[in-house]
Amino acid sequence: MKKRVYNFYAGPATLPLPVLKKAQEELLDFHGTGMSVLEISHRSKEYDEVHKKASELLKELMGIPSNYKILWLQGGASTQFFMTPLNLQINGKPMEYVHTGAWAKKAIKEAKLYGEVKIVASSEDEKFTYIPKNIQFSDKVAYAHITGNETIGGIEWQEWPKVPNQVPLVCDMSSNFIDKVIDVKKFGVIYAGAQKNLGPAGVTVVIVREDLLNRVPENTPTMLKWKTHAEKDSLYNTSPCFAIYLCELVLEHIKMLGGIPFMEKQNRKKAKMIYDIIDKSNGFYKGVAKKESRSLMNITFNLATPELEAKCVDEAKKKDLIGLKGHRDVGGMRASIYNAMSVEGVSTLCEFLEEFQEKNQ
Amino acid sequence: MKKRVYNFYAGPATLPLPVLKKAQEELLDFHGTGMSVLEISHRSKEYDEVHKKASELLKELMGIPSNYKILWLQGGASTQFFMTPLNLQINGKPMEYVHTGAWAKKAIKEAKLYGEVKIVASSEDEKFTYIPKNIQFSDKVAYAHITGNETIGGIEWQEWPKVPNQVPLVCDMSSNFIDKVIDVKKFGVIYAGAQKNLGPAGVTVVIVREDLLNRVPENTPTMLKWKTHAEKDSLYNTSPCFAIYLCELVLEHIKMLGGIPFMEKQNRKKAKMIYDIIDKSNGFYKGVAKKESRSLMNITFNLATPELEAKCVDEAKKKDLIGLKGHRDVGGMRASIYNAMSVEGVSTLCEFLEEFQEKNQ
Repeated sequence: MKKRVYNFYAGPATLPLPVLKKAQEELLDFHGTGMSVLEISHRSKEYDEVHKKASELLKELMGIPSNYKILWLQGGASTQFFMTPLNLQINGKPMEYVHTGAWAKKAIKEAKLYGEVKIVASSEDEKFTYIPKNIQFSDKVAYAHITGNETIGGIEWQEWPKVPNQVPLVCDMSSNFIDKVIDVKKFGVIYAGAQKNLGPAGVTVVIVREDLLNRVPENTPTMLKWKTHAEKDSLYNTSPCFAIYLCELVLEHIKMLGGIPFMEKQNRKKAKMIYDIIDKSNGFYKGVAKKESRSLMNITFNLATPELEAKCVDEAKKKDLIGLKGHRDVGGMRASIYNAMSVEGVSTLCEFLEEFQEKNQ
Repeated sequence: MKKRVYNFYAGPATLPLPVLKKAQEELLDFHGTGMSVLEISHRSKEYDEVHKKASELLKELMGIPSNYKILWLQGGASTQFFMTPLNLQINGKPMEYVHTGAWAKKAIKEAKLYGEVKIVASSEDEKFTYIPKNIQFSDKVAYAHITGNETIGGIEWQEWPKVPNQVPLVCDMSSNFIDKVIDVKKFGVIYAGAQKNLGPAGVTVVIVREDLLNRVPENTPTMLKWKTHAEKDSLYNTSPCFAIYLCELVLEHIKMLGGIPFMEKQNRKKAKMIYDIIDKSNGFYKGVAKKESRSLMNITFNLATPELEAKCVDEAKKKDLIGLKGHRDVGGMRASIYNAMSVEGVSTLCEFLEEFQEKNQ
């Protein structure tokens, strides 16, 4: 291995080095089978162990109650944007969405294909720099939908909203999945593309309360029913075996470190380190998100000009700090510090930011 | 590396050893980036090169005309079973399917959700042991659909059927994709899960003639329109980067070996070696498929009793010949010999089968 850089990409994102090393070590011979995990049948005993263990570890680490199913699907959160209304629709009942930015917007667009969508709250008035508070959800809707963290804006729910008892709360947790301890019981459905906190691109986790599996219309394509995958333990068709295998390794690694409580503690520490630099910079670095909605995962900030931002991104790159350019739709800078980003990486970034300010202010 | 076995699984299936070795070698540091290809952004320059090269290589090797788009999707052929009628439906026009076995059946089931399906030919009368011939396709249909190879039955189209000029021929080539030279112009759409001849599980190739992209109804979910992915070069959302990267490596490897003409020659040789053993066995091994429909990829056969078959599978396993048990729905034995199975592997299997016959007849 030549070197490893610090990778601040928003996703696909950095993975724990011990996980990559293990995957590398057993890439040609998985558990003594003489085959790669890339080559073994999804119906083989060896793969089945990996598949089951991934679900068991997730259940254990998140404390998922027994009346929930864990599905390992393909197609990303973008596919769940329409599978959610498709699977949860109730004829004549609207769906309620909180609009917090680019990802919520995409979810809303797809839901409109299935019925009336009510935007119960939005932060569009201030360019999606905060998470709305004190939202009054209706009890007359099929479900309520929120986006746990907006990767582009860099805002994250700090406290989960209260919804009426009979209304399932659905959350797109793609970019803050297992970043902190949550109470799964509060949710009807949680979905997340793996490629930020859980594993590589190519697999999506859906955690769904069992009673919600039966709403889907009969004449729905087999692959689009959560129920199909729940009944077949996500092996109705060939699963993305290698991606699930890597998730399993990541979950094992997290367990070894101390589980999600440890991740949360470390994530809060890492985020504070960077936000402190921003707050102490006398306006050299301007945080995008309002303080009370700041994301633990994606830290967005601006410098005085786009030119200075470009210079900052370039000089960071020379110091092996990669992927700090903001999303192409909004510009600016963004440091994505998912579970697998080390404190050391964040500390190196902080030192760089302080130096850069000294030289350029 | 301890050992490598000969892997006859029907898919996920064996991959070329040089491809696995290269993937292993650069797993921690992809092209000097200091990151794994599992970790780099799907919008990064480095990944973009891989993504583009995979399509270019496929175009070059298959001779795909410029009025076709190559899509790299998720969800397997099982997802294309419904995406095909969804994207190609014409109001009031039926769809025509050839029924050749388990996979055709699944495709037919999903198509029925979108309109009238006519079974223009079927080999159900002889338990799907042959591919129907001299089929008269109608010119009044939205499209005609065939399954290029039936993995479970072990039958494969030897000559592509003639369809009326204006009718697009759609083919599920999951299990015989790039196993031989084909004329892509004969097809409107070709789709294939990668996990047999092209790469690992988790990515599906769709090759679609451009004029067919515009049939899809406007109110279709964004992710379900082939058009979405065609317009964004399969980067509308996060693509399954690692799976595409492996496909790219496999295609490079095939090119180096001599392209698809080489694969075809080798595949014919390998298949003949095993079919010869069956034919010369005086009925000890009974081929399932009729001779004129025999698959180059999946060789299905029976022994006198299920007990003898189990014994054969077990003894093969002891000699590192893995995955020879037939599909659970039909029993018997099956040797899947995809592109990446070496002549040496097939030769070792043949020797074993001859020995097994000697000892057990």
